[in-house]
Formats: sequence, structure tokens, C-alpha cells
Amino acid sequence: MGKVFDAAEVAKHNTPESCWVILYGKVYDVTDFLSEHPGGARIILKLAGKDATEEYDPIHPPGILEENLKSEAFLGTVNADTLPKVQAEPPSDAVEQEGPPPMEDLLNMDDIEQVATKNVSKKAWAYYYSASDDKITKHFNTEVYRSILLRPRVFVDCTKCDLDTTALGHKLGMPIYVSPAAMARLGHPAGEAGIAEACRSFGAMQIISNNASMTPEQIVQDAAPDQVFGWQLYVQVDRKKSEVMLERINKLKAIKFIVLTLDAPVPGKREDDERGNAVGASAPVASAAQAAYKASDSASNANNGGGGVGRQLFAGTDPSLTWRETLPWLAKHTDRPIILKGLQSHEDAYIASLHTPQVKGIILSNHGGRALDTAPPAVHTLLEIRKYCPEVFDKLEVWADGGIRRGTDVVKALCLGARGVGIGRPALWGLGAGGVEGVKRTLQILSDETKTCMRLLGVERVEDLGPHHINTRLVEQQLYDGPSGLDKIRGTFRARL
Amino acid sequence: MGKVFDAAEVAKHNTPESCWVILYGKVYDVTDFLSEHPGGARIILKLAGKDATEEYDPIHPPGILEENLKSEAFLGTVNADTLPKVQAEPPSDAVEQEGPPPMEDLLNMDDIEQVATKNVSKKAWAYYYSASDDKITKHFNTEVYRSILLRPRVFVDCTKCDLDTTALGHKLGMPIYVSPAAMARLGHPAGEAGIAEACRSFGAMQIISNNASMTPEQIVQDAAPDQVFGWQLYVQVDRKKSEVMLERINKLKAIKFIVLTLDAPVPGKREDDERGNAVGASAPVASAAQAAYKASDSASNANNGGGGVGRQLFAGTDPSLTWRETLPWLAKHTDRPIILKGLQSHEDAYIASLHTPQVKGIILSNHGGRALDTAPPAVHTLLEIRKYCPEVFDKLEVWADGGIRRGTDVVKALCLGARGVGIGRPALWGLGAGGVEGVKRTLQILSDETKTCMRLLGVERVEDLGPHHINTRLVEQQLYDGPSGLDKIRGTFRARL
Amino acid sequence: MGKVFDAAEVAKHNTPESCWVILYGKVYDVTDFLSEHPGGARIILKLAGKDATEEYDPIHPPGILEENLKSEAFLGTVNADTLPKVQAEPPSDAVEQEGPPPMEDLLNMDDIEQVATKNVSKKAWAYYYSASDDKITKHFNTEVYRSILLRPRVFVDCTKCDLDTTALGHKLGMPIYVSPAAMARLGHPAGEAGIAEACRSFGAMQIISNNASMTPEQIVQDAAPDQVFGWQLYVQVDRKKSEVMLERINKLKAIKFIVLTLDAPVPGKREDDERGNAVGASAPVASAAQAAYKASDSASNANNGGGGVGRQLFAGTDPSLTWRETLPWLAKHTDRPIILKGLQSHEDAYIASLHTPQVKGIILSNHGGRALDTAPPAVHTLLEIRKYCPEVFDKLEVWADGGIRRGTDVVKALCLGARGVGIGRPALWGLGAGGVEGVKRTLQILSDETKTCMRLLGVERVEDLGPHHINTRLVEQQLYDGPSGLDKIRGTFRARL
Amino acid sequence: MGKVFDAAEVAKHNTPESCWVILYGKVYDVTDFLSEHPGGARIILKLAGKDATEEYDPIHPPGILEENLKSEAFLGTVNADTLPKVQAEPPSDAVEQEGPPPMEDLLNMDDIEQVATKNVSKKAWAYYYSASDDKITKHFNTEVYRSILLRPRVFVDCTKCDLDTTALGHKLGMPIYVSPAAMARLGHPAGEAGIAEACRSFGAMQIISNNASMTPEQIVQDAAPDQVFGWQLYVQVDRKKSEVMLERINKLKAIKFIVLTLDAPVPGKREDDERGNAVGASAPVASAAQAAYKASDSASNANNGGGGVGRQLFAGTDPSLTWRETLPWLAKHTDRPIILKGLQSHEDAYIASLHTPQVKGIILSNHGGRALDTAPPAVHTLLEIRKYCPEVFDKLEVWADGGIRRGTDVVKALCLGARGVGIGRPALWGLGAGGVEGVKRTLQILSDETKTCMRLLGVERVEDLGPHHINTRLVEQQLYDGPSGLDKIRGTFRARL
Repeated sequence: MGKVFDAAEVAKHNTPESCWVILYGKVYDVTDFLSEHPGGARIILKLAGKDATEEYDPIHPPGILEENLKSEAFLGTVNADTLPKVQAEPPSDAVEQEGPPPMEDLLNMDDIEQVATKNVSKKAWAYYYSASDDKITKHFNTEVYRSILLRPRVFVDCTKCDLDTTALGHKLGMPIYVSPAAMARLGHPAGEAGIAEACRSFGAMQIISNNASMTPEQIVQDAAPDQVFGWQLYVQVDRKKSEVMLERINKLKAIKFIVLTLDAPVPGKREDDERGNAVGASAPVASAAQAAYKASDSASNANNGGGGVGRQLFAGTDPSLTWRETLPWLAKHTDRPIILKGLQSHEDAYIASLHTPQVKGIILSNHGGRALDTAPPAVHTLLEIRKYCPEVFDKLEVWADGGIRRGTDVVKALCLGARGVGIGRPALWGLGAGGVEGVKRTLQILSDETKTCMRLLGVERVEDLGPHHINTRLVEQQLYDGPSGLDKIRGTFRARL
Repeated sequence: MGKVFDAAEVAKHNTPESCWVILYGKVYDVTDFLSEHPGGARIILKLAGKDATEEYDPIHPPGILEENLKSEAFLGTVNADTLPKVQAEPPSDAVEQEGPPPMEDLLNMDDIEQVATKNVSKKAWAYYYSASDDKITKHFNTEVYRSILLRPRVFVDCTKCDLDTTALGHKLGMPIYVSPAAMARLGHPAGEAGIAEACRSFGAMQIISNNASMTPEQIVQDAAPDQVFGWQLYVQVDRKKSEVMLERINKLKAIKFIVLTLDAPVPGKREDDERGNAVGASAPVASAAQAAYKASDSASNANNGGGGVGRQLFAGTDPSLTWRETLPWLAKHTDRPIILKGLQSHEDAYIASLHTPQVKGIILSNHGGRALDTAPPAVHTLLEIRKYCPEVFDKLEVWADGGIRRGTDVVKALCLGARGVGIGRPALWGLGAGGVEGVKRTLQILSDETKTCMRLLGVERVEDLGPHHINTRLVEQQLYDGPSGLDKIRGTFRARL
Repeated sequence: MGKVFDAAEVAKHNTPESCWVILYGKVYDVTDFLSEHPGGARIILKLAGKDATEEYDPIHPPGILEENLKSEAFLGTVNADTLPKVQAEPPSDAVEQEGPPPMEDLLNMDDIEQVATKNVSKKAWAYYYSASDDKITKHFNTEVYRSILLRPRVFVDCTKCDLDTTALGHKLGMPIYVSPAAMARLGHPAGEAGIAEACRSFGAMQIISNNASMTPEQIVQDAAPDQVFGWQLYVQVDRKKSEVMLERINKLKAIKFIVLTLDAPVPGKREDDERGNAVGASAPVASAAQAAYKASDSASNANNGGGGVGRQLFAGTDPSLTWRETLPWLAKHTDRPIILKGLQSHEDAYIASLHTPQVKGIILSNHGGRALDTAPPAVHTLLEIRKYCPEVFDKLEVWADGGIRRGTDVVKALCLGARGVGIGRPALWGLGAGGVEGVKRTLQILSDETKTCMRLLGVERVEDLGPHHINTRLVEQQLYDGPSGLDKIRGTFRARL
Repeated sequence: MGKVFDAAEVAKHNTPESCWVILYGKVYDVTDFLSEHPGGARIILKLAGKDATEEYDPIHPPGILEENLKSEAFLGTVNADTLPKVQAEPPSDAVEQEGPPPMEDLLNMDDIEQVATKNVSKKAWAYYYSASDDKITKHFNTEVYRSILLRPRVFVDCTKCDLDTTALGHKLGMPIYVSPAAMARLGHPAGEAGIAEACRSFGAMQIISNNASMTPEQIVQDAAPDQVFGWQLYVQVDRKKSEVMLERINKLKAIKFIVLTLDAPVPGKREDDERGNAVGASAPVASAAQAAYKASDSASNANNGGGGVGRQLFAGTDPSLTWRETLPWLAKHTDRPIILKGLQSHEDAYIASLHTPQVKGIILSNHGGRALDTAPPAVHTLLEIRKYCPEVFDKLEVWADGGIRRGTDVVKALCLGARGVGIGRPALWGLGAGGVEGVKRTLQILSDETKTCMRLLGVERVEDLGPHHINTRLVEQQLYDGPSGLDKIRGTFRARL
């Protein structure tokens, strides 16, 4: 049986350059085999210099060894007495780690949210986590994706899979973008610039919040030449302030479009946020947002608890925007394309499509469930548009956000006609969980999951996804089927011409 | 860098008259800025005289400070050594409060119910909380609102929002009224008069329970001149008693109408109430209600446990009311308009519409789930009427109660055609939680939520709400679609003419 | 202010003959008022001789006292110093009772099952509670009733309410009967005779189980002259045994019909029962039932655990029954009407209707979920018959069992066309909870609940209940709508003539 | 009263040869009666020589004893003083067993999974248990069966019941087969050969996994002459390897067909598996599977945690298979019939039916929920085929797997047109719970349950099951009803001819 080795001798050969293992009492030199191992080199190297029998045996049928190793790989036998005794596994709490886990251990959005929840301040958690009233819409945003089934096709070559797409003509590395979520520095000092850095690695688009905790200039400062940003505008009661801001934005080449947010003309009631702020010692108090329209109210809206971060940020926002007044005003102050955010009915999507070319796209959104509870998810609005006025998809780019937690969710939105899919909280949780690396991990997971889903559907490119890849039967049974406002709208617009 | 201040010196300037803060080691006088702060003055005053950096930094982009403060606001720097050391947060249970929280900390109906549950006696809790059998209808009353989606419209000026409405021609400050919930003093000594006081602040209507724990005279005593009350009548077997009572009511100008309750000709089986009363030492025993119809029963209905408060209150109520006999009798004893309460089918709504002008309105109600379990919620009856006999809405005012917990619920009922929406338990829980202030808090929350909802729908006035603002698809799938009794009713009434 | 009494003096007047109470410091003689009190005399007597102020005050508006009592009822005032000090309520665990609670404290079927579960042996519990496989059908039997809504009508005189009905022409006091549930003595020594005794008080029908733990003669021994019994037949492989048994039954006048059970030709898999029997020391072992058809099986059905009570009882049952063979055989041995039990499809209901006059009725039943899991509930079969072959209701009496837990359930089954509604487990739990008194309590609760439901629907007599009183929309969406077997059946039967 | 026995004397007669029991103080010789006892002999023998009164009494009506025993069976009375005192039941934790329970105590698939979960290593558990993403499809696979109702027919002779069927013309003892589940030796050293041994006892078919932990030769080594195996092929990027393997398979007569797996061209994301492997000390690391297509990816799919067993096994699998290329290649290397596994749409089922005679069957499967989460269950695909292209059932054998946990599930799949039903995890859990005996127990339970279900439906043979035996109404409401790809497919194939 050839030479007899001591275990200590074998143990020295534990590198890619010289890799020996013990199997069934025999010693093999598997250095040359490393690159051929179907399971990859790393798993062998982990066992290099050791007795690998216990790991190897139950997952390899007999004969595989001889089949795959050349005869010269066999070096001899091991002296059994020299092998170390098996050690008991340490009690599981002994290996419990301190501190946040490495990012690559986080497998999905829930993992990331969980770590971020531990990392960030109560105030930050409450602001990010909160949604209006009973959070019915927040949860439904996610649940509605769960109720759509996929229709995988087989016998399709899925070697290649490509997430490349475009937004308003700009090339993007993936159809997932970061929504204009505010106050990133509450969660991590890297802030919105950190999100930008992560997006750069993936060619992902980012929409900068009007309430970002950093200036737009800071955020886009290290952008890649082809990196794409949008900037979110909450029009202020004091229009001058908005005009000054637009002037600044107009100077920033990285910012390709303006996102006008329409789904929160007044703030939603985010109770976690309000409570979150009542907890701290130096809790903010007055809600200036309320002050904005208090004057016109007989019974004031003002005494709701302490006023959360959301309510404070809202201060000064103009609730009087209209199709007729606001778009022309905006045209005077910027020639960037306008994206309207927060549409939740086919009627408004249709009206938007009558405002091209100034308006180039719409974002179907309920503000992450943070504005009006029991508002419909973007999936409903996508289906409504498909049903009542599918021509909207030809005239405008339609994006969607809210509730995305899985690559399958991304794919489903794309199948329904969305060109891009926004993530808000997942980006902030990523930042909270691990700063720039956390956001990268978020994008990596969603990218991987999206590709896996596309491959298993038998689809190579984003633009090939369509409604025949999904079964939306259950959602269709929830869909609005009352009278459409389209006739009236068409009448009004025709009359105006 | 100018003057150097000790922290103690800065600390003196902590009032609206002289307000200094430390930011990034610098001292600013922000007294003049207080009124301009988008987040409101109070949040700054909370930090007046202190180092506000930690609070300020993560939610303000750099440059904002310089942009907003005049240069003379900068006073100098702070001597870092004089700043107090950061104190550890006290352990959370150390800050646990004694006693009920301030009313403004209660953010929603659940909070209020929770506090009231702690405050009131077991008997009161059991009476208020209870509903019939398995409380399926009680819960469904609320759940059905959750399953209706809203359809927010964007780009609508929502600066103004107005809850004003009318009931039977009387002006009201809000479309929410207090239902005839009995035994208010069980929950708080302020009783029904306390509810009246709270309603006065909001221009809200109140229907006084036949089983109020105060006399109608006491309840309306401090009413505002334009305050609107109704009075609920349970017709007694001993009609004389009811006639005497009607005489008293006829003398009270504040009482504008009579509400004849029809959904509880016999008491429902409210097990919590029955058990709640079995607990106390001096528990009531016999159920006189049963006695009322015992005579005609072969097997008596009488031996259900101890008999709850509900069953006792029911004693003497006449179960023999009919369209033909009761309305003419009533006409003899009052000329106040009649509102019929407890209708649960389109057939009865239709019959009611044949009894104008004596009958001026109907209340769709299942008695808060306290009469018959698995009875339909008012939302069902609203939809039934819309489907089978929408003309009812033109002939009668249709009000609805049961299950309202959110402003969105109020809005949904109004969208379906209700002119007013009643709250029963929420008013009693409010009273239990904080007396008059608790009821005010209840009305304030619902008022604020209703307005926020209307604004986010893009609706300024109550009368502009309509079915196109909601998606009732899921509820429609539960709706009765068997044969309607309308044909027979029309035949009968035609024959009678 | 008249005379001043010591509390001790007042305390002596604590009987119906002389009843004094103290209210707000005054002493009243309410003896004459006892019979007039709307809340009943008992509640006052409970407080007789005592200070009733605390109980009285919050539920009576001021003035009620003076209004209702004659002036001579006022006797004087009480010496406050002589009143006993208020005693603290004893800690709640101090009043915790030993032993089962009095029957009248049990308010519903769940209460009764809970008490019985504590009282009876593990084996009895397991036998009664068990159902096949995952108990999906057992739970669905009840849940399906919960998903049917009621349609109460108002302004209907509901003073009278009458549960009288008939079965096969025999008068019954209520439309609820006791199903042929086996092994009553497992739960209580009163056994099936105890159930009979309880039924007698209510004019309720009882079907005696083939596997009763007492002889039919014993069970009917103390029957009232007009008491109605049926007898359940499981035809035995050894037909002689069945014939002998039928001979005995033919001699018992109280037994008016034979119930031939068809839904369990082989035993269902009742895992609780099988486990329940594995627990005891002297657990039964072999399953003779299996032996019955083992011979013809390639792979035996025999080694399922220990074999529960159900499996043992099943021993000897003939699985070979057919329409063609069994009914003629039965005609030779009895001329009592035949009721076929266990029909679960409209097809079989229709075939049964072709076998009049021998077959006079059918029982829609899935054996309480004990035979085949995911079998349909009787409500489905009722609706199937209504949809496919409603003429069955004219030719046969249709009864239904399974899942009944509330009077509303009873009413719903009756609305769908059932003439009678069977309860199995509730009768056994009643027996287990309190023997004869427990069964009476069960029947009393269901009777009371049924009447309350009928009154609140505005229905006086059982025969007036109809499908317009219920909303079965949700159930209809679950209903079988595949091809009906009726055409084939009609062809076959026509050919046979 | 005849002779008086001491209990000790009676106790000696405790065998089938001489079996005495004491009942109500009397001693009987029941030896001759043993074979006649309807409840079987074993239950009496358990009580042989003892006082059986307590066991006997509550389940036998009086008189039964005399009726069944000949008079000579009565031997005399027992001396009561000699009877042992009743012993208290030992406390229940005292009888708590050590070690796994006997297989016959496991009553259903859940029991078996529970025992296996305790027995096997964390890694094995994670590999077996895991499914992709949120395991929605894994759970839905089972839930969808629960939502199908059965339609039992009565008065059908169900003495005989036969599970015999065929697959591709080969006789089988049951319509349940073992799916190609990998890595059986992870769970138990008996491995895939152990599964084969269990299958042999039941005439059940087994499909050998491409990733079996034993060689095909080992697995079929002890096969019965008529035992049927299939072999699963994952085509390798290195086609030579697959060709060599096919050559080996072609030599094994027991393997009757090749199963080409199509539903996992890339591995699903099985998070439990990935985490399960991160736990152990010697956790595998690199995911070679990813490497396979990494080259063509812009953003790599590679850094998902540690890479579970599933991901490792996947290494080298060819994701480029197509109808046009792969089937002809396969035809060159084997003439065994081809079964395509993993079809999830009616379109692919239809295309498969165009590839006869090489393709002889299809397996509707979503890989046990391990590939793409929210993919449809096989029940959906069965219903889709029935709806869109029922002719597929005539051209191909259609098998189905995923979610089977009960005999009723098996029956439902068969009713919908499946010829065979595969179990994967249940076989592995069986192996983990008890090796060969555990797999036998799994098959026995499913066989028994399937027969019970068929009998209660009134069906004797597998081929008589049809859609009229089930109510799929609820599932039909979830079914895809978008545009079918069939037209396009028909066009393409016609053009190709």
C-alpha cells in the first residue's frame, strides 16, 4: 500500500500549491485536481491537509474517486494513530458572534432589515419603518407580489442573462433604482453619497430625495461619467426656495431628470414615526407641516402626538399643485424632463400621457404606504392602465415602486410593463446594516435573484419579459372595475384644445 | 473665531425671547429664526441653550445653516471643556409613567380603547366591549372597511378641506356623529353630558340613548344654540311609558329627531357582558328582557347565565313593532322627524322610503354587532341599496354605523352614499380614557384622519366624495345576489293604495 | 327627613315579603315595586337590605327613582356611621372554584366542550374529538356556517317564536336532533339513556347509534309517549346479526325509522383516536375493521398505529352495500321508513329520491369529518341539490348534520332546505360536562340561540325560513360546478324500468 | 354461582391457548371466542388473565356478553379480595421514551418528518427541508391540495380496492413513485439502495437522482425482476461526462427510462440550505454552479453566502438545453424512452407532446419548490392542460410531484389526469426516520390512505378516478387565464415541417 504518512506530515500540504487530503485512510495529492473539481477548489482547500472522509463520503458515490484522480495522485496511507481525535462541536452559543455579521452572510432583504434595525437609532428606525395608519398598504405592497404566480418555460438556453436596460434613453446596468428616500444620514454617516457609491458599482440609477441629508452636489460628486441621477422636487409654498433649488440642480449634469412628487401633498399619519420621536429625550415637538394648511382649517389637524421626522420634513410643502398651474411654472425653471411620482389611478396616468413631451415618465407609487393607508399598490395601477388605457405605456416610461423584496417581485413588475423598479427602504436598511457595503449587498442580492428568476423563466433580456410570464388571476379579482373617469378627461382635454 | 462662551452662559438663553444653540462648536443666536424654521419653533426651543449638533446634523445637509441664518447670528464658539458629558439614556422602565398618558399621546382608536380598558370597571368594559355570540359581525364591521381600497387622485389643490355637512337640514361641523350608546356613566362620571360637551367643540351630532345614564334634560342642558341632538326610542311594552317620555322629548328644542331602533327587538347574546356581570359580588341576576316574551314560549329563553347589563337594559322593550302599527302610533305622539335605525337589507331600506315624509332617514346598522352575529355590516347594505334600489338615497338620508376606527373608514362610508357616520364604542372608550377630553381626542383624531384622507384623495368637500374614489371589488364578491324581495313589496304597497 | 335607621335594621328587610334598600342615604321599601322593576325582581333582591347606591347610580338617570316609587315608599334616612365599610374584593384566585362550574354558567358549545374535555378520560376525549387526517373537514363544517351571512328584517312582530316542527310526520319540539353518536357511556355513566332523558324535555328527536353503549331497549325505556327515536344501522358482514338486531328494533314502538349509514363503509383515519388509545396501559390493539377487507388487499391497510376506538367499533361492518342489493334486503327485514345517512353529492341525493317510498329521507353528512378528510360539508350538498335537482326537497325529507355550534348555524341550515339539523359531538360534550343536565344545557342553549336568531330575522315559525334570509355568496364561490352525473343516472334508471 | 377463583389462578390463563378474563366479578374462558371477537383477538389477549371490566363496560351494551358467549364459557366467580389494587397511572413523563419511536407509531408524513428532523444532521436537514426564497411554492404545493374538495359517492361496493397501475407499460403496485431526490446517504447510510429495497415491497417505481450518493449499479443491485427504475439526467456542460454516464445506464436493464430534468437549469436560492452549511465547522464554500455561467455575467451571481449542498451539486450542469439541440443529442446516446421533468405550463406540455415517440411522458413539477419561488404547483399545470390542450393526456403519460402529504392528495392528482404521483422529501424523511423501515412506513401510510380515500369515494381502481370525483372550484379561480402561447407554437411547428 505504499508509504505510510503521519497526519502531521499530511497537514503541511494545505495550500493551492500543494494540496493533500486523506480519504478512507489513504493519502491523495489533489493539487492538480483542484481546478477540475465540479464543486469548486475552495471546498477542497478548506479540507486540505486533513481527513476529509466524513465530509466526502455521503455526497459522493463510490468509484467517483478513482474515476477522477489519476493513479499517481495516490501517495500512500495514513497512520491512523496519528490522526487527531474528533472534537466535540463547541456549544452553539459559544460561536455566537459579536457585532454585525459579514455582509455576505445576509441572504435577503429581511436579513438586511434585521441587522439595520439593531444598528440604527430608534428615531431612524421609526422614520424608515413607519407607514401610515395601520400599515395595510405597506404590507399589501409586498403581499400583492406574493399572490402573482410565475410561469417558467423550459428547454430555453439560459446561459446568458442580461439586466441592462435604459431610462429616458440613458443606459443602466439594472432595472432596479433607488427611490428618493430621505434622511440617509440618520441611518449611517455615509448617507446619500454612500448610496451613490454603491449604485455606481451596478450601473444603478438613484433619485435624490428633496429631503436628502446631504446636498445634491455632495451626492453626485464622485459619480461615474455615465451614472444616472434624478432629483426629487417637493414644491415649496415659498416658490422662490424651489426656484433657487432648481437653479442649483440645473447646473448638475449628473442629474438627468426632475421627479415631481404628487402622492404626498399633505403628510400621511405615520404613527411609528410619531411615537419614535416621542421616546427620545430631545424629541422634536411641533409639526410645522400642519401649520402650512392650518390657516384654512376650521378644526386643526395639528395635535397629533409629537410630530415625527416625516411631519417635520414636510414643513413648507405646497399642497396646491395642479396640472394647469404647476407644470407650466416648472417649465419656466428647468428644461430637464419631468417624471411624475405617486400616480395611483389609470385616470392620472392617462392625463400624464397628455403632457408629453415635458412629462417623460411616471412613477406608480403609494409612497411606500406612507401617505394614504389602503391606497392601491403599484401592481394594481399597472393592471389598471393595461386594462383601461394601455397606450400610456407607449407614450411614457412607467416606473413602479413599493414592496419590492425579492428578484421575483422585480420581474413581476417588469412583466406588467414597468421599465424600472424602485427600492426605498431596502436601500436605507442596506445603508444602516453596513454603509456602502450594505447598499451594495442589497443591490447584489436583488440583481442575483432577478437573474435567477429570469433564467428560470427562460428569458434572457429585460425587454423580453411580458404578461404571459405571470399569472395575475388573483390580483385581477381585486382590481377596480367601477366606471372609468377617462371619458370625462378626454372630453375636458378636447374642449381645452 | 470671536468670543468663547462657557456652556453655562449659553444655557441661560433658552427662551423664545433669547434663544441660543450650539452647533458644531459654534454658538448661534436663533431667536429671530424661530418663526421661520420650517420644522417649527418648538423643536428648536426644546434644544435652546444646549448643544443641538447631534440632533441637527443627520437631518440637515451642509450649508443649510449658513443659507438660513444671517451672519450676525453667529456669536462665537463654545469652550468644549464646559460642555456636559453625554448622559446614558435611563433604562426604559425607569421612564415608564404612572397613570394614564396625556390624551395627545393617544394616536388612534386602539390607543384610546387600550387606556379605557385599564381605566374602567370590569362591568363597564364587558358591557362596552361585548357583542353577540362569536363577535364575527363586530370584527367584520371593521374588517370590511380594511378590504376597500382608496383611489387617490393627484395634482389637485388640497389646501382647503372642509368637513362641514348637514343632517336633516341642520348644519354640522363634521359627518361623524355619536351613536346612541347606553350607560356612559358606567365608564366615566361625566356621562352622556360629557359626550355632549365634546361634541359641541366639533359641531358633531349626538344621538341620546334610550338607556342613557342621565336624563335627556341633563344631557342637552349646556348645548350650544345650534347643537344637534337626536333621541333614541325603544318602544316599551307599556306604551304609556314611551308616550310620557316622548312628551318630555317634545319639549326639548335641542332634540331635532327621534331615532326608532329596530335592530334589537330582542337582545342579542353578548357573552362578555354576561360573564362580566357574573364576576362581581353583587351581580344582577334575572333577565327581565326574557320575561317580556317568555309567556309565549314553550321552552324559555331565560336561563342564559347571569344576564348582562345589556339584557337588563332591554327589559320592557316591545318586540311587536310593525310598519303598520308603530309609525301611526308614533305620529300621534310626536311630530319630530323619524329616523329608523338598524336596517340591514335593501328591502327594508326601500320600504322605509315609502314612509316619507314621516320617516326622513335611516341608519344602516347591525347594532355594533351586538344583536345578531353574522349579520351584514352597513357597507354591505349600502352596496345592496346602490344595486337594487338606489332611489332610496334620493328620498331618505342614509346614515351608517359600526366598525369605524379610522378616518379612511369614514370616507369610505361617505363615498358609498352615507351622509353621516356614527361611532358608538369609540365615544365611550374616549370617555373612559379621559372623560370629556377623551371624547374630544376621539373626535379630533377621526376629524384629522378624515381630512388627511380627503386631501390625499384630492377632495375638498364631503359632498364631492363618490364611489369612483374607492375600489369595492372585494366586498362586491361577498354581496347578496339572491332574489330581491322588492317585487313583492311593490305589489303589496300598490295593492294597499 | 323622617326617621333615621341603623343599617342593621334595614338589613333585616331582605326578602320578597319585605324588601328595603338604601339609595343615596335614604331608605326605601321597594317590596311592592319588585314585580314592576323592568330589570326583574331578582336583581333587587340581591341587594335587599343593603346600600344599593353604587350598583344603582351609574345605570339610572336621576329622577327615575321618584318617578317609579310611590311617596310612601320613602321610609327615612340611614345612619351613615352604621353602614359597613366597603370590603376589598377578594383576590380573583381566591374565588376560583373547585370542580366543574354550574351548568348555567356555560354559555355556549365551546364552554361545554372545554368542561367536558377536563371531565372525561383521555380515551373518551380522543374518540369524541377526533376526525380524519388533518381535520380539515371537521373545521370546515363549522367555518362554512361562519361564512354565511344573515339578512335580518325589521319592523316584524317577533313576540312569538316557535321551534315546533315535524320529522316524517311526527311532531317535534325543535328542529335540532341528536345524531347517532356512539359510546356515550365513555363520557358519562348516564349514557345514551341520559341523552334520551334530556331530549324528552325538549321534544327533541334522537337517533340511536348502532354502536351505542346501551341497548336500544334501555335507551327508549323511559321515553315519553310521543318521543321520537331513530335507530342507526351499520349492516354487518354477517347479515344474520343485522337481521336479529332489526327484529329487536321492529318491536320497539318508540323507534320510528331506520337510519342506514352510508358515509363510512370503511373507517376514516382518526389520528387523535389512534393516539388516544396508544396512551393507556391496556390499550386495544388489533383493528378488526381492517380484517374485514384485508383478504382482498394486496398491501394491507392494517398496520396503522394502535387502532382507535372508532376502528374497533367498525369491526364487522359490511363495505359491500349497494342500491340494488341492500335496500331490497332491508325491506325484507323491516317496514320502518328508511333514512339514508351520509350523502355528500347531489347525484346520490337524486338517486335516493328515486327510492321512495321505502326511503323517506336523507341525512346530508360527512360523518362529522370523521370519514374522509376534505369531504364537503352538508351546506355544500344542500346548495348542490338546490342547484342541480331541487325536486329532491319535495320527494324526501332532507336533514343535515356536522359543524353546528350556534343557533345561527341551525337557522342557516334550515334556510337552505334542511328540515332537521343533527348534533353529535355537542350532545356528547354536554353529557361529559354534566350528564343529563349537561345535555339539557346543550339543547337549551341551541334552542335559545335559534329563537333569538329567528326573532331577529323577523321569522316566527321554522317553516317560514328560506334562502332569502341568508347570503351564501361566499359559499357559492366554492361550490362544485363540474359536470353533473344526473344525466347518466336518469338514463340508467329509465333503462331499468 | 359455581367455583370461586383466586385472581392468581385466573392470571395463569393469559395465552391464545387458554385465555380467561374477569368481567363484573365473573370468570370466563374466552379462548374459543378469540377468533370471533369483532374487535380482534389481540385486544382481548392484552387483557387475558385480568379483570377486563373497566375496559369492557363502557363500550359494550349489556347483554352482549351472554349473547356471544356459550354458557360453558362461564367458569365461576373471582374472589374479590385477591384482585390487585388499581395502580395509579405513572406520571406521563415517566413513560416518555428514549430514542426514536417504533415506526408503526408514526401515523402520517408530519410524524415522520418530525422524527427525521431529530435524527439527521443539520446539513442534511437543511438540504432536504430547504426550498427557494420564501418557500411560498413549497407550501403552496401542499396547500393547493387542501383546497380541493372530494366528492364521495355512497352505496358502492368498496370491498375491493386496487392500487395497481402501469408506467410506460410496466406494471406497478401503486401509483406513487419516489422522485429523484439527491443525497440519500446524507440522511441515512442505507441511502438510495435502501429506498429501492422499500420500493420493492410495494411494487413502487423509483427514479434515481443524477446526484445520488450511490452509483446506479449499487442502487439497482438487489432489485426484484419486475422492479421499475428511471434515471435522472442533468446534462453536463462537459457532454462527454453525460455520454459516459448514459452508456453505463444503457447497460442497466432495471432502468426503464431517462428523466431529463428541465426545471432547474440554474439552481434556485435555497436559503436554509445555504445557512445550514454556514453552520458547520467545515462548511463548503465556493459555489461552482455559479462558476458555470459566471463568465457570461456582467454582475456575478456568485457571492450568495456559503453555497448550500444544492448549489454544489449543481456544479457543471448545462444551462443551454433546448428542444432542438438536446433531444437529438440524447437520441444518439440512448434509446430508452425520455421523460421530461419540470414542466410548469400547458405550452411546454403541448410542445412535449409533439416530440413523441422519443418523449413518452412528462413530469409536472416545480422541483419541490426548490427552483423558482411562486412557480405554480403541478395541480395548476394539470388544470391548465385540461383547459387548453387536453389531447396531451392522450399522447403522453403525465406524472406529477410536489406537496404530496396524504393519500387524498394522491387521489386528487390522479383525478386530474396524473398517471403517477411522485414523492421526494417524504421518502428522504422516511429514510432519515428509520432507514429502509422508515421508507416502507412512508409508502405504507400513503398506500393505506390512498385506498381509504378511494373506497370512500366509491372507486375500486385507479383508472376509474376522474374529475367528477373532486371539486376544484377554488383552484380554478387562481388559474392562469391569460393568452395561450399555443397558437404561436402550432404555427412554428407547422412551419418547421
